[in-house]
Amino acid sequence: MTDIDRQMATIKRGVAELIDEGELRRKLNRGVPLRIKVGFDPTAPDLHLGHTVIMHKMRHFQELGHHVIFLIGDFTGRIGDPSGRSETRPPLTAEQVQANAETYKKQVFKILDPQKTEVVFNSAWLGKMNAADFIRLASSYTVARMMERDDFEKRFREQRPISIHEFLYPLCQGYDSVALKCDVEMGGNDQKFNLLVGRNLQVHYGMESQCILTMPLLEGTDGVRKMSKSYGNYIGIDEPPAQIFGKVMAISDELMWRYYELLSAKSLEDIATLKADVACNKVHPKAAKEALAHEMVTRYHSEKAANEARQGFNAVFANGGVPDDMPEYSCNAGEDSTPPVFLEAAGLVKSRGEAKRLMKEGALSINGERCDDVAAPLASGTYIVKLGKKRFLRLTVR
Amino acid sequence: MTDIDRQMATIKRGVAELIDEGELRRKLNRGVPLRIKVGFDPTAPDLHLGHTVIMHKMRHFQELGHHVIFLIGDFTGRIGDPSGRSETRPPLTAEQVQANAETYKKQVFKILDPQKTEVVFNSAWLGKMNAADFIRLASSYTVARMMERDDFEKRFREQRPISIHEFLYPLCQGYDSVALKCDVEMGGNDQKFNLLVGRNLQVHYGMESQCILTMPLLEGTDGVRKMSKSYGNYIGIDEPPAQIFGKVMAISDELMWRYYELLSAKSLEDIATLKADVACNKVHPKAAKEALAHEMVTRYHSEKAANEARQGFNAVFANGGVPDDMPEYSCNAGEDSTPPVFLEAAGLVKSRGEAKRLMKEGALSINGERCDDVAAPLASGTYIVKLGKKRFLRLTVR
Repeated sequence: MTDIDRQMATIKRGVAELIDEGELRRKLNRGVPLRIKVGFDPTAPDLHLGHTVIMHKMRHFQELGHHVIFLIGDFTGRIGDPSGRSETRPPLTAEQVQANAETYKKQVFKILDPQKTEVVFNSAWLGKMNAADFIRLASSYTVARMMERDDFEKRFREQRPISIHEFLYPLCQGYDSVALKCDVEMGGNDQKFNLLVGRNLQVHYGMESQCILTMPLLEGTDGVRKMSKSYGNYIGIDEPPAQIFGKVMAISDELMWRYYELLSAKSLEDIATLKADVACNKVHPKAAKEALAHEMVTRYHSEKAANEARQGFNAVFANGGVPDDMPEYSCNAGEDSTPPVFLEAAGLVKSRGEAKRLMKEGALSINGERCDDVAAPLASGTYIVKLGKKRFLRLTVR
Repeated sequence: MTDIDRQMATIKRGVAELIDEGELRRKLNRGVPLRIKVGFDPTAPDLHLGHTVIMHKMRHFQELGHHVIFLIGDFTGRIGDPSGRSETRPPLTAEQVQANAETYKKQVFKILDPQKTEVVFNSAWLGKMNAADFIRLASSYTVARMMERDDFEKRFREQRPISIHEFLYPLCQGYDSVALKCDVEMGGNDQKFNLLVGRNLQVHYGMESQCILTMPLLEGTDGVRKMSKSYGNYIGIDEPPAQIFGKVMAISDELMWRYYELLSAKSLEDIATLKADVACNKVHPKAAKEALAHEMVTRYHSEKAANEARQGFNAVFANGGVPDDMPEYSCNAGEDSTPPVFLEAAGLVKSRGEAKRLMKEGALSINGERCDDVAAPLASGTYIVKLGKKRFLRLTVR
């Protein structure tokens, strides 16, 4: 295996799509560190594990000696939605952008090497463009090509409005790659169209086009929908150690291997070995999951915190006594996901009254943490529910 | 008839469309001079009578005491076509724009009152916009609405490319009305969509919307297609007196009344009287046409030049002896419109040899001017052809 082959193997780990492999090999072959760009929205600094997938990929590039550019898209964030249609996108002030950037840095440098990360703001070049520059930029793309983007095509077909400025944002984002002379741009696989705009724009501006690399969207703890705060199926990287540990312990075995591939710092070889050991019963799947939970808490807190979280979890679940076989139960979020309702429906208690009484006595724990709020519904996600010493349930809230 | 009624009658003379009459009345009712904008392309300073139709309408507004803004669209002219698709639109330098503007002024002040005309360049405000201003502007319009413009719709449907910057130009042009706080914008009726953009943008920017007023495209001397240099059916305002005079004399009687309405400074009442006099044979149509030709030459040269042109024309056509009934003949431009060919085909001569011989003797005149080039085809238009003393032909070249 050549060095390029080794690099390609690391780069391709967990990737959804790479355009184009031959081109990337040629770029790597030159032996000059590549310029890797990833753009981040300046509005949402509250990261969960779903956001970190791409940061791990950035980390891979850093470990291979490449130059990683962490781009904060403050230009559009500071304009907001000028059409006034989206109330969720008010313009940000320069101070808010700066504050969000600091929060970002604090979080992402738990994964990235700060010494090898260039943090840039695209207002630095987009803010300096005048109208003539902008018209030149807009001349590089056709309406038909822009309309190929799924959401534009759909909205146009359904006669829902698309403001013309929405056509300008992908161009601005693409122009970032021109300004930064990027060799590779990465994003979630819902970003493919925008990444391709950058690739095309570079040709228009007379430079070599970037490769694009998309990462899959990480499934949430329910294993079904993408991880998202609004679905409740997320693991926030700023959550307390016990919570991160418990949430990881609650995911299915299948999802565990997905998380290993996309989130763990373990090499693919080590993961393959572990998987084989689990398959032949040399290692219990719960032990593998515990190792993953431990790694996550160590990364976002500390090894000490991870040890304590493991201890706490096992104390609740009687010396690691989470049974291999638990009854499974699913319900919808809302009324159905309040503890007395699902405990009765799943058959763990005979009545809601019994559930409430037991909860008052402190007998209910969810993911290793005591739960006594009888009225609060659980959000979407998967939970290990323990009632008293012996009653267990793997609950999935949809 | 109130003053507003009188103003409305003048304003509506020859107009293709006015949106909206009630609004315009309300604006006039305030008694404050209205701000009337007309935009001109900075690339084409070589004017023909077709261009002057709108200038006469501007003149009408001036005579009614309103403020007329002659806008030179140098902003887009100085960018050119950045997509590089149109070779006919290379960017203009600031000097070229200034030189063209001077040529414009020299020509248009033959119609407009220079004291009452404000000449502005839209680079003054568009050139100062930054990218954020531009995005705000673009947010005011939807893709679907822009696609309603006939040519965009057609090109999109036929899968011919539309560059995104082409969507920005109507917005820029519309923004001019915002920057200038216009009450009325005028243009050719092929400009209706763009004028409506200005009207809508003003609402977006929180101001009263302008009325729009479109003028018909003037038919060329052939009475069929719009007047255009590329069709050859034009009367340039810088052409020599004899040429303008002869070209006007060659138009059909029907077209004459159209030209009267759109180009003459005569009042509608005077034109109606003249038309009635011609109808009851009190005035010969040739005399009415001569008066129009005289007015045109007087405007673009001088009364003296007009007198001389009339004299010269009548000398060729034996004391005004253009017969009432002339044979008519039509042919295509090209080979068929070279004199020996059409003279033979129309039956004025027995052979092309005879035509050439007579031309050598100086016997052929076209619109009152001697013609001896046997090989040069006539361009599209209508011509009075005279061969020798008695042979006449009204020739229409398509």
